[in-house]
Amino acid sequence: MGGDHGPAVVVPAAVQAMRRLGDRARVFLLGDETTLKDELARSRAAATLRSGIEIVHAPEHIDMGEAPASAIRRKKHSPIVVGAEMMREGEVDAFVSAGSTGAVTAAGTLIVGRLRGVARPGIAAVLPTDRGVSLIVDVGANADCKPVHLLQFGTMGRIYAETVMGRKGATVGLLNIGEEPKKGNELSQQAYQLLLRHEPNFVGNLEGRDVFAGKADVIVADGFVGNVVLKLLESFGGFLLRSFREEVGSDLRAMLGGLLLKPSIRDFSRRFNYAEYGGAPLLGCRGLIIIAHGGSSEIAITNAIAVAERGTRDQVPQRIRDAIEKEQVA
Amino acid sequence: MGGDHGPAVVVPAAVQAMRRLGDRARVFLLGDETTLKDELARSRAAATLRSGIEIVHAPEHIDMGEAPASAIRRKKHSPIVVGAEMMREGEVDAFVSAGSTGAVTAAGTLIVGRLRGVARPGIAAVLPTDRGVSLIVDVGANADCKPVHLLQFGTMGRIYAETVMGRKGATVGLLNIGEEPKKGNELSQQAYQLLLRHEPNFVGNLEGRDVFAGKADVIVADGFVGNVVLKLLESFGGFLLRSFREEVGSDLRAMLGGLLLKPSIRDFSRRFNYAEYGGAPLLGCRGLIIIAHGGSSEIAITNAIAVAERGTRDQVPQRIRDAIEKEQVA
Repeated sequence: MGGDHGPAVVVPAAVQAMRRLGDRARVFLLGDETTLKDELARSRAAATLRSGIEIVHAPEHIDMGEAPASAIRRKKHSPIVVGAEMMREGEVDAFVSAGSTGAVTAAGTLIVGRLRGVARPGIAAVLPTDRGVSLIVDVGANADCKPVHLLQFGTMGRIYAETVMGRKGATVGLLNIGEEPKKGNELSQQAYQLLLRHEPNFVGNLEGRDVFAGKADVIVADGFVGNVVLKLLESFGGFLLRSFREEVGSDLRAMLGGLLLKPSIRDFSRRFNYAEYGGAPLLGCRGLIIIAHGGSSEIAITNAIAVAERGTRDQVPQRIRDAIEKEQVA
Repeated sequence: MGGDHGPAVVVPAAVQAMRRLGDRARVFLLGDETTLKDELARSRAAATLRSGIEIVHAPEHIDMGEAPASAIRRKKHSPIVVGAEMMREGEVDAFVSAGSTGAVTAAGTLIVGRLRGVARPGIAAVLPTDRGVSLIVDVGANADCKPVHLLQFGTMGRIYAETVMGRKGATVGLLNIGEEPKKGNELSQQAYQLLLRHEPNFVGNLEGRDVFAGKADVIVADGFVGNVVLKLLESFGGFLLRSFREEVGSDLRAMLGGLLLKPSIRDFSRRFNYAEYGGAPLLGCRGLIIIAHGGSSEIAITNAIAVAERGTRDQVPQRIRDAIEKEQVA
């Protein structure tokens, strides 16, 4: 029960998700019991669904600014810690949180635990491309990476793209500063060789134009580069809009043009709306963990829950474990 | 005499630059002598300027794809090698090339040589922001960096921003994945501490939104991250345009809107035209080296020559040497 908007957004989202999923899933709502009960009572049609929704009392709150590892040690009654413990005990298959990315990642690694063979869980996020979207892994779980981590980000991302995103034969590329195998820093040169040897769907290095052309379904990056890239691209759209508005200024002709274009601009912006994709999976843990954006809307949380159900049905964690085992990199 | 368009663009650009600079500068044109003479004869008003323009025969060509270090060893008669040697011998103060970035960087480091105290020269490029432009250093000279390299990128970028770009008291920020000092990978955490201690105008870490808000005049990054970021942002604009055109499609109302907006869109695009800024300086060598984009237009080359003259007049290399000396980092 996290996120900037709290239960007022998450509870109706859960009700909406249950309406969509029917008896394919049960939902546990974690947070302050009284608040959750009130919200649930307020939600339309909640009564008819109540059987599929259970409340778990977890009143503590982990702030976005708190140091992740110490926060999950201290706040045993926070939704993030309680949810991770339920997953460890096999009480839930999937866990959705709009809380602190760092704390969810720490809970996934330290409480739920990594899948056998996975060196580091990685966070996957979608980037829009000419061919729809691609997945970029890792976008921030690991600031310092080794080559084998990048190999595994590629493989875990491929499994997710093939299953939840429905991309049969999903391809994997390495974000780099040149096309040739010898390009890049030491990390990317070594990761290139590992991907070439162990990842069957590897298509080579990707530069800016390749990323947006959708040359690969999965874009491999270390968590530092991935996070920098994601945040820059998230901010660039807004910057372009501000710059363009300034340019148009009070030019009447341009203003009329803008008015006529408005519906197209709205449809266009929707393609870049992260809410549509329902959050970023933390791949590599013993259960499917979905990190929703802190500012998630109701529809974003509903989609995140649907994605969690889909990923569980597609057995994403089991498939990742099997694929990593097959790679057998020491 | 490099670049995709060759002498047909570079020669008229040099003539134009001389017209602008008058007797403040002399220009040497490096390349195949016959070709250059033909182009110079073709340029209008060349006769009146001829006294300020000299031709240096350097007929070999280094391809974009060649390994930089071996190319400059083998092709002693290429413009890049001959130009670098002229700089080493004190025959020129500045050197502009639209040739291979890797080869120019190698020639700057291995032939011209680094300024005393500079560990690694870095390439600076401009990024558009809400406040005009910022400078990002390094965008590709160094794929693997140490903390002291990042500190020096910041200081060298500041000198360039204060002089050539006219930003008095230019500020320096570190591209990172969080605002707090402890955020980031090992490299950025250590670079943060060095910048805090030695760079007087350091303003802290920058995330995506800070970059485009123009929070710092100079953005410090290692050459891998800087290059990835630059190429992604260069490609993103084109991608947005393609996506938007597809959205508008054959909707008549939207098409009319687009027509009315066209002049504003053109003015807007100009802000993102790298040609206006005249190329990327390779900072830290014993002379001012400007790397122009391979696809540079005539105006871009003219601007690059003007920037080279301005940087020489402002004594950029000497100021960098003095500033780095003052830092006294072992």
